[in-house]
Amino acid sequence: MKEIIDTLIKFRNERDWEQFHNPKDLALAINVEAGELLELFLWKDSSEADKEKVQEELADVFAFAFLLAEKYGFDVKEIVLEKIKKNAEKYPVDKAKGTAKKYTDL
Amino acid sequence: MKEIIDTLIKFRNERDWEQFHNPKDLALAINVEAGELLELFLWKDSSEADKEKVQEELADVFAFAFLLAEKYGFDVKEIVLEKIKKNAEKYPVDKAKGTAKKYTDL
Amino acid sequence: MKEIIDTLIKFRNERDWEQFHNPKDLALAINVEAGELLELFLWKDSSEADKEKVQEELADVFAFAFLLAEKYGFDVKEIVLEKIKKNAEKYPVDKAKGTAKKYTDL
Amino acid sequence: MKEIIDTLIKFRNERDWEQFHNPKDLALAINVEAGELLELFLWKDSSEADKEKVQEELADVFAFAFLLAEKYGFDVKEIVLEKIKKNAEKYPVDKAKGTAKKYTDL
Repeated sequence: MKEIIDTLIKFRNERDWEQFHNPKDLALAINVEAGELLELFLWKDSSEADKEKVQEELADVFAFAFLLAEKYGFDVKEIVLEKIKKNAEKYPVDKAKGTAKKYTDL
Repeated sequence: MKEIIDTLIKFRNERDWEQFHNPKDLALAINVEAGELLELFLWKDSSEADKEKVQEELADVFAFAFLLAEKYGFDVKEIVLEKIKKNAEKYPVDKAKGTAKKYTDL
Repeated sequence: MKEIIDTLIKFRNERDWEQFHNPKDLALAINVEAGELLELFLWKDSSEADKEKVQEELADVFAFAFLLAEKYGFDVKEIVLEKIKKNAEKYPVDKAKGTAKKYTDL
Repeated sequence: MKEIIDTLIKFRNERDWEQFHNPKDLALAINVEAGELLELFLWKDSSEADKEKVQEELADVFAFAFLLAEKYGFDVKEIVLEKIKKNAEKYPVDKAKGTAKKYTDL
C-alpha cells in the first residue's frame, strides 16, 4: 500500500494540487467518485455493469480514500482491521447470521 | 492488503452474508458509507471534523471497496496505479499544474 | 407540483421507462445526480460553482425525487411539512440556535 | 411550493442557521440525505424497504434541495421543466424507447 500512496502523492505534488486536497474536499471527492461508480449499476442488474468502467471508478474511490487516509496519518490496514473488530461486536455471529438487518434491528 | 481482504471475507462468511454482497449492492454500500463520511464535514471546516469518526467511516468505505474489488478479482494496487497513469494523460503537468479545473476544461 | 410530476410521467412513459423506475433504482438515481451536483463544488468555494450547471444538476435531483415520491404516492408538500415538524422536536430553538451540532450532540 | 420554502426558511431562521447554509454545504447535505435514503434499500429489493422511513429520508432530500434552489433564486418548476426539455433532446423517443442506455451510448 505504501507504493500506491507514494505514487498518488507524487502525482498530486507534480501538479501542485495539495492546496486543494483538504480533508473536506477529499471526502467530497470520494462521494463524487462513489456516485460515478454507482451510475454504472443504474437501471441494471449487477451482471450488466461494464467491468472495465467499474475498475476505473473503483480505482478513483480508492485513490481519494488513500489520500484522505494519508492526510490523517491513518494506517489503512490498521483502521480496517480495527473497524472489523468493532463490527464483530455490533454483529455477533449468532444474531447476524444470514440476515441483512442493521445492527439496530437485530 | 491480502490480510485485509482475507479478514473481510472471513467476517462476511461467518455471517453468511455473501448472498447479499452482489456488486450492485456493494456499490450502494460504498455510497452509503461515503455519505456517512461526508456528514462528518457537514456545515464545518475540515479542522472541525471528528478525527476518530472519520477513521471509522473511512474504514467502512475501504471495507466495501475491498469487497467489491475482490468480487471482480481486481488487484487493488494494479488498478489504482493503472488509473493514475490514465489520469496523468488526462491531466498533463504543464496544463494541470496549480489548477483545480476538470480535464474537460483544461 | 402536479404539473411537474405529470410532465415527468409523460416523459417517462413515452420512452417506456417505467420498467426501470423501481424505487431502489430511483433512490440510486437520486444519489448519482446528487453526486454530479456535488462535483460542481469540488475543490471550490460556493461562489466558484457554475450556476447554470448547478441549475441543471439540481433539476435532475428534483426530477428523480418527484418520481420516487410519485411511486409511493407521497404528497411532497405534506411529507416535507411533516418532516419539518419532526425536526422542530429534534432541534428545539433554545438548544439548536446558532449551532451546527447534530441533534444527538445537543 | 412557496409554502414549503417559506416554512423551511422560517425553520432555518428561527435557529439562526443561515450562516451554515452556503450552497456547497447544502449540496453536501443533499448527498448525505440521499445516502440515508439509499441505505433503506441496501441488500434489499425495492419492496422490502420501509415505506415510512423512505418518506422521511426523501423529505430530507427535498428539504435541502428546496433550500439550495432558494439560495440561487431558482424556480423549481421552471428548472425541472427546462431540464425535461433538454433531456428530451438527449433522449429522443425513437432512440431511447425501452432502453436504459445512457444518451452517450444511444
